[in-house]
Amino acid sequence: MRTVVPFDARDPKTRLGPLLDADERTAFARAMLHDVLGALRAAGSRPTVLANASVEVDAPVTVDERSLTTAVNAVLTGADGPVMIVMADLALATPAALDRLLAPAAGETAVAIAPGRGGGTNALVVRHPAFRVDYHGASYLDHRRIADEVGASVATVDSFRLSTDIDEPEDLPEVLLHGQGESRQWLRQAGFALGVQDGRVGVTR
Amino acid sequence: MRTVVPFDARDPKTRLGPLLDADERTAFARAMLHDVLGALRAAGSRPTVLANASVEVDAPVTVDERSLTTAVNAVLTGADGPVMIVMADLALATPAALDRLLAPAAGETAVAIAPGRGGGTNALVVRHPAFRVDYHGASYLDHRRIADEVGASVATVDSFRLSTDIDEPEDLPEVLLHGQGESRQWLRQAGFALGVQDGRVGVTR
Repeated sequence: MRTVVPFDARDPKTRLGPLLDADERTAFARAMLHDVLGALRAAGSRPTVLANASVEVDAPVTVDERSLTTAVNAVLTGADGPVMIVMADLALATPAALDRLLAPAAGETAVAIAPGRGGGTNALVVRHPAFRVDYHGASYLDHRRIADEVGASVATVDSFRLSTDIDEPEDLPEVLLHGQGESRQWLRQAGFALGVQDGRVGVTR
Repeated sequence: MRTVVPFDARDPKTRLGPLLDADERTAFARAMLHDVLGALRAAGSRPTVLANASVEVDAPVTVDERSLTTAVNAVLTGADGPVMIVMADLALATPAALDRLLAPAAGETAVAIAPGRGGGTNALVVRHPAFRVDYHGASYLDHRRIADEVGASVATVDSFRLSTDIDEPEDLPEVLLHGQGESRQWLRQAGFALGVQDGRVGVTR
């Protein structure tokens, strides 16, 4: 199955700006990409990176400078079989979680969606030739609607790991709590640790 | 299996104070409790409510005015078999998600944990007589440690639905996006709707 990992190679993870400077954001984004590619390979996939600028990474890279939605739809338009699209900031992704995304699609399901917290779409398996993405706003609802419009059946995968995209400072505790790879290691080496304040878990540096 | 749903019958959901007044918080908390009890029954359980004050609800109620940790440990101490503990604010809980929590425990696993976002413990199945809870702080890590100390094996259940406890205003979109029961209906009747601002999904009223 064609497996694509979109990656912002220009100015990644801007919402982590309050905690990480630009070089750190780049390094941390690369660590997360590395973990996602590793989990996909361990799940039997051969992922390629879809980047908006050239980037050196241990995987084939396609550069498309257009928007995420346009670039992913170009892949879907050109595909002659199923396509899997997995976001590069799913630092908690494991082969087992990705297997569950692949499993329902193996049957009658034309589109399998792993929703992100906040209504996003963190991972997709598309087996219907007419389905297209629209990543703007609450894309989970849009993707259900689009699937409905083209007559594609939908399965939603109930995974905490795949629902957790690492975008904002409040997401970092999840990497320290549940991460198993380079992303967690990078945060720890950068001096981050879990901290509990007023009963809420956050990070300290 | 003894199934317990702890419920704050005094001053529930205080962190939703910026959006809901006290009466509304009580009503919304009751709607979520209703949904959790319904999902548990549909999964084949016969849940009882463990409340910190008397409350009228369509299920047997045990009142224990002590802390959550103390009250749950009293249940565990008195149990002569496995115990399931499910938080009352898991508005997205479904029978399928709860089944997955029960499944790993059916085998050799002594403690099955559904972690909450932020390091909490949203649901537990305990089959080891010496295991006790400690809900303060990052309880997910504490519960893993406690299980280790008493020689109990642990399984973590990877469920977005069970990871989503509804505590803060930022959690409400999840109920509107993925809820299927009374909680979602209550929010809609109270005038809440999804709103997208700067690419982030929130609620408007």
